Amino acid sequence: MQSHSYPSKLLENAVEEFAKLPGIGRRSALRLVLHLLRQPQPDVERFIAAIGDMLQNIKFCSICHNISDTDVCSICSSPSRDKATICVVESIKDVMSIENTMQYRGLYHVLGGVISPMEGIGPSDLNIDSLVDRIAKGEINEVIMALSATTEGDTTNFYIYKKIRNYPIIVTTLARGVAFGNELEYTDEITLGRALLNRVRFDNSFSVE
Amino acid sequence: MQSHSYPSKLLENAVEEFAKLPGIGRRSALRLVLHLLRQPQPDVERFIAAIGDMLQNIKFCSICHNISDTDVCSICSSPSRDKATICVVESIKDVMSIENTMQYRGLYHVLGGVISPMEGIGPSDLNIDSLVDRIAKGEINEVIMALSATTEGDTTNFYIYKKIRNYPIIVTTLARGVAFGNELEYTDEITLGRALLNRVRFDNSFSVE
Repeated sequence: MQSHSYPSKLLENAVEEFAKLPGIGRRSALRLVLHLLRQPQPDVERFIAAIGDMLQNIKFCSICHNISDTDVCSICSSPSRDKATICVVESIKDVMSIENTMQYRGLYHVLGGVISPMEGIGPSDLNIDSLVDRIAKGEINEVIMALSATTEGDTTNFYIYKKIRNYPIIVTTLARGVAFGNELEYTDEITLGRALLNRVRFDNSFSVE
Repeated sequence: MQSHSYPSKLLENAVEEFAKLPGIGRRSALRLVLHLLRQPQPDVERFIAAIGDMLQNIKFCSICHNISDTDVCSICSSPSRDKATICVVESIKDVMSIENTMQYRGLYHVLGGVISPMEGIGPSDLNIDSLVDRIAKGEINEVIMALSATTEGDTTNFYIYKKIRNYPIIVTTLARGVAFGNELEYTDEITLGRALLNRVRFDNSFSVE
């Protein structure tokens, strides 16, 4: 007798599939599946259809690689965006985070990850060539590198910087500093050191408000 | 601009559906959906198929209402189970929990919930009549009430007890007591009181080992 004796193979299969999702253990998976079983059939069908529909019809923007319902995404095709600025991010989630700040009106470029030898992700696995192509067209003034503040993020920053530094553009990165709401006492020393080094004039420090 | 600006309606639909699952907020839902998008297509199709397959083909045992791949579940149809004992539980999950103890060889009866006026669940919403029918056939010796140790569980216990007490059967409930691993200091007084009241002879207390 196995430690989890499922009364049904069909149930077990569904639980196993849910348990493959990140952060969902077998116990949570069982809870989710039993929840679905208790819902009216049309509701579960809508759940399945939403995933299937997304899988079959979702597109990636041919310019910035963001998720899109159309060939060119709504940001790249918007007439009100600043088309001379590109913000380079790791993932679609980062685009959404930056959009939610409402502080950015330029375009994006989604790399699809960062260079990580540990995870076997090299530069050729990322959307770097298409970024260089966009810059090579000569209509870009500034490239903002907005990658994670990690070793992998820094490696990727340097790799891309070397590829694009000879174009007539400004390359910037996100400010590193003390996060909003963080107490100095609990801020790590690298962050604190950088925040000191990159200190800004007091009258500029409210420019994002 | 809404606080979450999804780059795609298809993505948003999938996120909304995931966010309907219990314990999954919109942020986790987005993480799960983006994870699915990164998986190879056959893997996501397997995920969808497992749920759809379960939905269409799963059965509930015509005797005990447990989930089953067949008309009568594997427990009810097993020749090695004690067919004179019924353990009454709230849900399929409870059947699995009790099976995992490997301490029970009788049959089950899944009520599908407990009486809860607050949630609008009355006796007629539960599989109580079919339990009475099983007992009325005269082949049952013992009914073990294994419901939650809550007010709703107790209400349901009493309701069922009144319906079945005139049949020539023994009705028992799970022992209430100090849980394994619990320190007395942190055990609530109702539990401790019951554990004292229902104390067992020391030489019997290892019978489940």
